Amino acid sequence: MKKTRICELLGIKYPIIQGGMSLIASAELAAAVSNAGGLGIISPNGSEPDWGKVAENLRSQIRKGKSLTDKPFGVNFPIHVLGQDRSLLDIAIEEGVPVVTTGAGSPALHTSYLQEHGVRVLHLVASVKHAKGAEKSGVDAVIAEGYESGGINGPDELTTFVLVPQVVDAVSIPVIAAGGICDARGLVAALALGAEGVQMGTVFITTNECIADQDYKDAIVAANDTATIITGRGSLPIRGLKSELITQGQRTAEADIAPRQMICGAVAGMINEIVSAGDVVRNIVQGYDRIVAGL
Amino acid sequence: MKKTRICELLGIKYPIIQGGMSLIASAELAAAVSNAGGLGIISPNGSEPDWGKVAENLRSQIRKGKSLTDKPFGVNFPIHVLGQDRSLLDIAIEEGVPVVTTGAGSPALHTSYLQEHGVRVLHLVASVKHAKGAEKSGVDAVIAEGYESGGINGPDELTTFVLVPQVVDAVSIPVIAAGGICDARGLVAALALGAEGVQMGTVFITTNECIADQDYKDAIVAANDTATIITGRGSLPIRGLKSELITQGQRTAEADIAPRQMICGAVAGMINEIVSAGDVVRNIVQGYDRIVAGL
Repeated sequence: MKKTRICELLGIKYPIIQGGMSLIASAELAAAVSNAGGLGIISPNGSEPDWGKVAENLRSQIRKGKSLTDKPFGVNFPIHVLGQDRSLLDIAIEEGVPVVTTGAGSPALHTSYLQEHGVRVLHLVASVKHAKGAEKSGVDAVIAEGYESGGINGPDELTTFVLVPQVVDAVSIPVIAAGGICDARGLVAALALGAEGVQMGTVFITTNECIADQDYKDAIVAANDTATIITGRGSLPIRGLKSELITQGQRTAEADIAPRQMICGAVAGMINEIVSAGDVVRNIVQGYDRIVAGL
Repeated sequence: MKKTRICELLGIKYPIIQGGMSLIASAELAAAVSNAGGLGIISPNGSEPDWGKVAENLRSQIRKGKSLTDKPFGVNFPIHVLGQDRSLLDIAIEEGVPVVTTGAGSPALHTSYLQEHGVRVLHLVASVKHAKGAEKSGVDAVIAEGYESGGINGPDELTTFVLVPQVVDAVSIPVIAAGGICDARGLVAALALGAEGVQMGTVFITTNECIADQDYKDAIVAANDTATIITGRGSLPIRGLKSELITQGQRTAEADIAPRQMICGAVAGMINEIVSAGDVVRNIVQGYDRIVAGL
């Protein structure tokens, strides 16, 4: 498979990144992805109200990750959760985490601080304007995340197919494509659009190593092409699996519905089995050459 | 460039189809695309209330097309406009049009009739269910049109990136990708996702040969990445350029706003000049090999 600037930047074999996912992106998953040649990402448990416990848990997850792989892995920090507080960032720095992904807030806030401590910073964007802003803030790369992605979604609804090439044209730092990608076809398509890597979330939920509930994994495996929906449009748009509750709510008060749902991306209908996280990476690597040869 | 089943099926050099566009897809545009090796499509003027005039205009457009190219071109028929009436189809048949694209209605209604008269039928779909239904009705190929596309949009909001591979997996007839595509990157990405051709609309509006108003063309050239919006969500979703009127209406009564807007796809931000329709095709052909070589 092609070596991109993302491989060099992050010291990884394949330009495949596992997305940070609140509550379920633990050390076991991150290490499995990194061991297979991609970049695993640990998410701190940011929904825990006790900040001391969040910090303790993050340090223990990073240490567990280091015990499970000697390859690089990263930590994801939603900036709105941190605010000005750098105590969690300091844990990542102290533990020698080489890569941090950020999003949901200004990249101007912590990028230089992390980089001064030797950490590479990848920032999530959903429009050309934010991509340019992130580049100006000095981030090492942007993750251009399309409308297809699970969880919190941007207001502009730019899909991967139109977002990625426009971000690629607007910045000179490497661009990682996210949203709607789960297999070798998606990786080749993303690189054709000008991306130098992919970030995938949903396909890693349905792996043996992911600590998500079995019901959650089974629901994604059972999902068809039209199984996901955006709720909270106009306030905090979130993509997840439809439920009877949500579809009823959608009809009556789309903007106000509480996002009690199984978060996942529009790619859910393409995921049909639970495998190991390493196999997700290996299947993509194996499929890549065959797809490129067919073009 | 790769020859796909679509090239064979339609007798064209490159698997590039110009989408039917009500009021603006005239003979000059269709002939220019076909002369460059793609497949041009004429749209009958279905918004004209006098059916006799629609028929007369269609016949004269087809004849003009034949005077401008000796290559194949097609006609687009939205099925909801025709209903059971086959008089327009009969004109296409009498004039020897080799390809018809259909959409917005059941493919069971006219597919066999057209095929019995030697016409190839390509049907527009926006979900796996409709793709399977179209294949069962015997269409020669499906056009899988993503959420990115301009004009009338499906209710399921499946984007090109997730729709195309799922349709490819679900049917054995060839799949043409539409929505979000305007250049060589998009064509290579679509083929990587399993499509065997692309249909593009918006990029052909901004061509010298298109009869669209200059204001309309200029607005697309000026558009940035976030310039388009879906209106009429929940009733008849339509994608077009945002206007002050629309964005205000969007805030107060999204589902009820009248779709008085300049129709175009989410790809508008990627279109930065007015060129000839032949150059659109030639630029894609020239870019193709370079992009594949870089993978």
